[in-house]
Amino acid sequence: MIQLSPPLQAMTDALARLPGVGPKTAQRLAFFLLRQPEERIHQFTEAILEAYHTVKPCETCFYLSAQNPCELCASPKRHTSQLCVVADTRDVLALERTQQYQGLYHVLGGVLSPIDGVGPEQLRIHELLHRLPRTEAEAAEEATLEVIIALPPSTEGDTTSLYLKKLLAPYAVSVSRIAFGLPVGGDLDYADQLTITRALQGRSPV
Amino acid sequence: MIQLSPPLQAMTDALARLPGVGPKTAQRLAFFLLRQPEERIHQFTEAILEAYHTVKPCETCFYLSAQNPCELCASPKRHTSQLCVVADTRDVLALERTQQYQGLYHVLGGVLSPIDGVGPEQLRIHELLHRLPRTEAEAAEEATLEVIIALPPSTEGDTTSLYLKKLLAPYAVSVSRIAFGLPVGGDLDYADQLTITRALQGRSPV
Repeated sequence: MIQLSPPLQAMTDALARLPGVGPKTAQRLAFFLLRQPEERIHQFTEAILEAYHTVKPCETCFYLSAQNPCELCASPKRHTSQLCVVADTRDVLALERTQQYQGLYHVLGGVLSPIDGVGPEQLRIHELLHRLPRTEAEAAEEATLEVIIALPPSTEGDTTSLYLKKLLAPYAVSVSRIAFGLPVGGDLDYADQLTITRALQGRSPV
Repeated sequence: MIQLSPPLQAMTDALARLPGVGPKTAQRLAFFLLRQPEERIHQFTEAILEAYHTVKPCETCFYLSAQNPCELCASPKRHTSQLCVVADTRDVLALERTQQYQGLYHVLGGVLSPIDGVGPEQLRIHELLHRLPRTEAEAAEEATLEVIIALPPSTEGDTTSLYLKKLLAPYAVSVSRIAFGLPVGGDLDYADQLTITRALQGRSPV
């Protein structure tokens, strides 16, 4: 029985390390890449290396960017009075797509998850606190007045939100969390129990 | 609304060009790659470039390999009396996994498909004929006695098989095509009409 040629096997193995790519898909991707013109392959590997070497977390908000401070922190158009706490850079993009939020962000880098070895030290919590005013006088100066927690509605997201709520209590900011309930276009009949429970708990006067 | 940082967008675009990878998956892959240690990223891009520059179709059978002649053509263990015609290098691997075939291969590089602009000139048909004996005397010398067509049971695969059958008629070889019918473990009730039709047509005495 013949095996794949060693360099082709090495390429397939490298592709199979990507998330969601099994051995079959990796082989398909490898054969696809072999069929590309040479310049396309160099573009492909150079785009990866270029991004890898230039894109770093912003030193203020930890959003991934080739700029430091990032486009968001550097923009004079953003309202500095609001700070939205998210788990990941992709969550910033999701919020930005709504075009409803004009404030700043703070990317925690995940949520508390003792099973996965993620404690408060693994997240950018210290750096978050550093951005907040301790007193009303500082608040007037530093401008952050509201922290909006936009962590996912999972056990870990809930734990992290509660943990942040306690930590933020001494600071001169109001703290809120985004609402959970039925998604727009969602049907009560098709929604899971936890979503309906959250929708009931989060009910508001009409 | 903020966009992805340009190098990160370029990397995402490059990944989104892979087959079966949409913009969302490409973003997930990009963020995954950014989190990898530097040596892993260099391994990844180097594995791709190394394979791209060393893996070429074998000049005899067109199996993709870093060797020429390939491992199959060079192996003294393979029976040179049988030649199996397949569409793609991946089909060679599929047949090899059965460990039932000990002959040689010929990779056509596809099947006839006028809609996609694939005519006989785009396939390695000329090169296939070149490998076959024209007379019994040549057959005794060159050793290829049987051609097994293992092209897929699609309209294009059927057309290509018929085309090859006609082309191979003047040659001193027997020509067969692999069987189509119910897959092992398959249920009549769940099989499609075409598969059952093929199974009926290909029936053999018990």
